[in-house]
Amino acid sequence: MTSEYTLRPVARIRSDFTQKFGIPRQSGMAPGLESAIVFEPPYRDPNALRGLEEYSHLWLIWQFSQVVEEGQDGENWRPLVRPPRLGGNTRMGVWATRSPFRPNALGLSSVRLVRIQHQSPDGPILWVEGADLLDGTPIYDIKPYLPYVDSHPDAREGFTRDTKEYALEVECAPELLERLPEEKRKPLLGILAGDPRPGYQDDPQRVYGMAFGGYEIQFRIQDKILTVLDIRNEKKIR
Amino acid sequence: MTSEYTLRPVARIRSDFTQKFGIPRQSGMAPGLESAIVFEPPYRDPNALRGLEEYSHLWLIWQFSQVVEEGQDGENWRPLVRPPRLGGNTRMGVWATRSPFRPNALGLSSVRLVRIQHQSPDGPILWVEGADLLDGTPIYDIKPYLPYVDSHPDAREGFTRDTKEYALEVECAPELLERLPEEKRKPLLGILAGDPRPGYQDDPQRVYGMAFGGYEIQFRIQDKILTVLDIRNEKKIR
Repeated sequence: MTSEYTLRPVARIRSDFTQKFGIPRQSGMAPGLESAIVFEPPYRDPNALRGLEEYSHLWLIWQFSQVVEEGQDGENWRPLVRPPRLGGNTRMGVWATRSPFRPNALGLSSVRLVRIQHQSPDGPILWVEGADLLDGTPIYDIKPYLPYVDSHPDAREGFTRDTKEYALEVECAPELLERLPEEKRKPLLGILAGDPRPGYQDDPQRVYGMAFGGYEIQFRIQDKILTVLDIRNEKKIR
Repeated sequence: MTSEYTLRPVARIRSDFTQKFGIPRQSGMAPGLESAIVFEPPYRDPNALRGLEEYSHLWLIWQFSQVVEEGQDGENWRPLVRPPRLGGNTRMGVWATRSPFRPNALGLSSVRLVRIQHQSPDGPILWVEGADLLDGTPIYDIKPYLPYVDSHPDAREGFTRDTKEYALEVECAPELLERLPEEKRKPLLGILAGDPRPGYQDDPQRVYGMAFGGYEIQFRIQDKILTVLDIRNEKKIR
């Protein structure tokens, strides 16, 4: 009766997020930002996608891989966690949160299916929006989103209700922003507006550096205003 | 880079469905039917539930345990499956379906949290509606439903769009129905109206037997009318 179950990744995310720092805590902060779902070699069968083009949204079940690497899942789980949305000091039961620190470190995200690329050197690729996952994240399952069973617009939001609005004003000189490919500019501003600082750090002097899509973004935050100081192509730095 | 991941059940469902036959293919067919989420011994910490009462809906990630027992997952997956909603003859890609026959046999269900029973001989229990799962199903994760990221009422329904309505008319003599506890009568009628036959079997002479909540339900189906022939307490039969 233990019912242990070993999962194998069926795909991985290829995204602009190469570091944990800067990944939006909830999806939807980076509108227009696309990620690629690249199937693992045993799962590159185009037949397995038949009919998928009829859906607009998908579910992804994936692994909080950093938590697993750090051994903060499994037997090391804690019943109480500190959601960043509550300032990082209030403790909530793990089942009442979407925290990565949980017995089975599984994540769940609904994403918009933008298009299906049927052929590539890596097999078929699903291009999706809203998958704000660390580059390389293992995906264990992909399911169609069925609105008549999955959508409950009137569901109660719990403690997240009062904490949704902690947006920053973002100041970024156009000549800096233009260093980014055009399709990544608006998503970056969305991510920055969502306040990427861990917990509620509040040091106006501190210069933060965030990796995003092969660029290094430097910024400072003071009085709810985030000022971008520099945007550099990481390849050029190295 | 294999990222295999071994899950351990955190809880199990205690439900009225002791056989696969009769379990609604999608949730919502058995309104008012409650199931219990009973935590496994290492996870019976009431702290882990703190804040959960503020949510109306939960996600469950669980195992299609029969598929796993029968070895129809993992390396034995097939790229194409035959969804019962399409009559059982049309083949669709596994990623375009919620079929249990998938590489990692994980299920995903949103359920309504009816109430939290903080104490019982088996620790805290979550009473939920809409978890139409086989009794004993292992649950690997429980997450709060967050409407502003999880609810997409306008998502496209794909091929399931055209196939939702295959309801039967149900005829059941009141003296039969009254053999059931009152709270199970309406749910049973909902399940029967959803047509519990596997695939599209169509034999008007055949008497089907279905286990439900400790009762054996016998019925026949002819011309879209399901007639209940008998309802027997299984304990009395044995």
